[in-house]
Amino acid sequence: MDDTETGRLSRRRLLRTAGGTGLAGLVAGGAASVPLRNGRPVPLTAIGATAVLFHGARQAGITTRAQAVGHLVAFDLAAGADRRATAALLRRWSDAAAAMTAGRTPDDDDQIALDAGPCALTVTFGFGRTLFPKIDREPPAGLAPLPPFAADALDPRRGGGDLWIQIGADDAPVAFHALRTLQRRAAGTARIRWQMSGFNRARGATDRPRTARNLMGQIDGTRNPRPGDTGFDAAIFVGPDAPDTWMRGGSYAVVRRIRMLLDDWDRLPLDRQEKVIGRRKANGAPLSGGTETTAPDLVSVRPDGSPAIPADAHVRVAAPESNGGATMLRRSFSYHDGLRPDGTPDAGLLFVAWQADPTTGFVQVQRKLDGADHLTRFIRHESSAVFAVPPGAEPGDYVGRELLET
Amino acid sequence: MDDTETGRLSRRRLLRTAGGTGLAGLVAGGAASVPLRNGRPVPLTAIGATAVLFHGARQAGITTRAQAVGHLVAFDLAAGADRRATAALLRRWSDAAAAMTAGRTPDDDDQIALDAGPCALTVTFGFGRTLFPKIDREPPAGLAPLPPFAADALDPRRGGGDLWIQIGADDAPVAFHALRTLQRRAAGTARIRWQMSGFNRARGATDRPRTARNLMGQIDGTRNPRPGDTGFDAAIFVGPDAPDTWMRGGSYAVVRRIRMLLDDWDRLPLDRQEKVIGRRKANGAPLSGGTETTAPDLVSVRPDGSPAIPADAHVRVAAPESNGGATMLRRSFSYHDGLRPDGTPDAGLLFVAWQADPTTGFVQVQRKLDGADHLTRFIRHESSAVFAVPPGAEPGDYVGRELLET
Repeated sequence: MDDTETGRLSRRRLLRTAGGTGLAGLVAGGAASVPLRNGRPVPLTAIGATAVLFHGARQAGITTRAQAVGHLVAFDLAAGADRRATAALLRRWSDAAAAMTAGRTPDDDDQIALDAGPCALTVTFGFGRTLFPKIDREPPAGLAPLPPFAADALDPRRGGGDLWIQIGADDAPVAFHALRTLQRRAAGTARIRWQMSGFNRARGATDRPRTARNLMGQIDGTRNPRPGDTGFDAAIFVGPDAPDTWMRGGSYAVVRRIRMLLDDWDRLPLDRQEKVIGRRKANGAPLSGGTETTAPDLVSVRPDGSPAIPADAHVRVAAPESNGGATMLRRSFSYHDGLRPDGTPDAGLLFVAWQADPTTGFVQVQRKLDGADHLTRFIRHESSAVFAVPPGAEPGDYVGRELLET
Repeated sequence: MDDTETGRLSRRRLLRTAGGTGLAGLVAGGAASVPLRNGRPVPLTAIGATAVLFHGARQAGITTRAQAVGHLVAFDLAAGADRRATAALLRRWSDAAAAMTAGRTPDDDDQIALDAGPCALTVTFGFGRTLFPKIDREPPAGLAPLPPFAADALDPRRGGGDLWIQIGADDAPVAFHALRTLQRRAAGTARIRWQMSGFNRARGATDRPRTARNLMGQIDGTRNPRPGDTGFDAAIFVGPDAPDTWMRGGSYAVVRRIRMLLDDWDRLPLDRQEKVIGRRKANGAPLSGGTETTAPDLVSVRPDGSPAIPADAHVRVAAPESNGGATMLRRSFSYHDGLRPDGTPDAGLLFVAWQADPTTGFVQVQRKLDGADHLTRFIRHESSAVFAVPPGAEPGDYVGRELLET
């Protein structure tokens, strides 16, 4: 290496990480790398250096804090690709993901993120129902097709898919680099079926653990369960007695592209918006009183006898008390794809919900919401997919091996 | 205001700002606001609290450090909208921009960014050539149509426009909020003609002043002029003797959507990529030697007598030494709009170049590049627009008043 050349010096080191990030699985001593320019290390900032461990009992990107940028990408197997080819692809993908999430450069790198650091990159792999006949395996019960809902306006070309990758990072070029890298490694085995990109608040632009706002301006996610809550693991992750042994420790992702009818919403006066949701817009407090974190009082009535939280308010219909305690972990991204041909914004939520069983998670909640939730009039579910997300891989292994090799 | 309500307390205060950000025009004592939740101030982080002053002799967003997220939006006047209506629109836009860039909530706010802080938001307004007959004014000489270039593949529906807004912020919801707010204020007077969204490295993910990489993986912008360089102001801003008095202190923006043929590019071996550009990919050093900041030696030859920097290398053809010293300030965003119907990425550069005169700036450089630059084979100019960006407005005033009221 001459003095005009830049390389990456791989060595075992402790990545510097920012304090109080709420990140799960911070790298404590993985094989990371130091970007060099002109033979000298490039100093990484706390945002650049933050790494989320790829390897482990569970895949990253489920309980990890949602990053600033996300890509959801579904692939279909190429004609003739079988279980063996799929296994080789998951091996290539896992190896590349392990390198990139630790800040290392994969082989034949395009150098888009050469000196960026990992920026909290996570890569999460899932399997769709249509994959299973192609690999000569039975799909797990959790991949049963979702029932139709009255409010659906689904585009099948943007739903489903044999394979799924969820990419998240706190830096857009790092996320783009991961997407391109993984797409290149699929060449000949799988091709992209659909691809969606979204965002959250910038890393560092808000103090944790403030709940984010969605593009309707609503504080969204107040009642999201948190790791450590009673029953969290059992509700979100497939248990140790599940019949599909390869899914034990995994989870199911329900992915819905939910467009918001923002022009209609914006024409609604503030007090009517608040009745649709059942919360104050400014601070997220339920209309029954208190602050954002006060539990909605569903029996509270106003002086005139009407319920403080209307019968069709989103917060009432979606409440665990209203649907037998069904719990899912929502970890979504907002999206904004410009204008539609009719001049309205093509924007909304890339809804991603995690649960041990979609039947008792998303399906149960959505059955309650469907038709009864006033909010339904201001949103359109435009695409839908469900993926079985197997447990994580240990170093040297790859995601999905137990399904693909046994 | 009861205790479940959230408001914004406006008072004059010094916004906290992050050290060493390279931001131009940090608010030193503007009328800012403190977001509240449950009656208590929400603490803003350094990223959230960073504000760029809207008012001043020059508009923000030209020499301001490029933010993590950008939206470029062109509007056409509605039928019947005249100079008076345009003036009223620029007044509404300027008032909203002044409020949002200081972290205040405009009237009738949708609350998408209610408690976010300004996040280095800038809003920059420009006028296209087609505006002038509609407001009964002569366009300035700087708005002469660009000549055609051999490498153009322009879509006129995504080019041109009567009015232009450039939005930049370090947080995606803040940028989206600004876009929606300004679009709503245009209702009845102007409608969106085209809209493009892009990104740069996250604020805080890299140390300044490292040069960024584009989506080809190239370090891009090494020779970009900097404020304070000899001749910078004269090259970038319209001078005090310009015949169009309303443009004195303003600048011209040339906007080009430049798609990169990334699949073709990635198939090119590294050493051939480096000859196309004339620089080492890893560290940006010219092929004539040195480091990123070493001036390319255009006469240097290799032992076999061939030029160290090939005759058609981008860095040679674009060099100020090769084009009579033409200078422009490039302040671009990368973009990524998913996949094209042919399966290739719809990604590249939202190129924005600033100069006192496009004829001696962009046009002079592009004439040299056109056909001669090897890089041309890997890019497509898909849209084009030029905007006259008038000087800034002082507090109480609005951008463009001298053109629209005199």
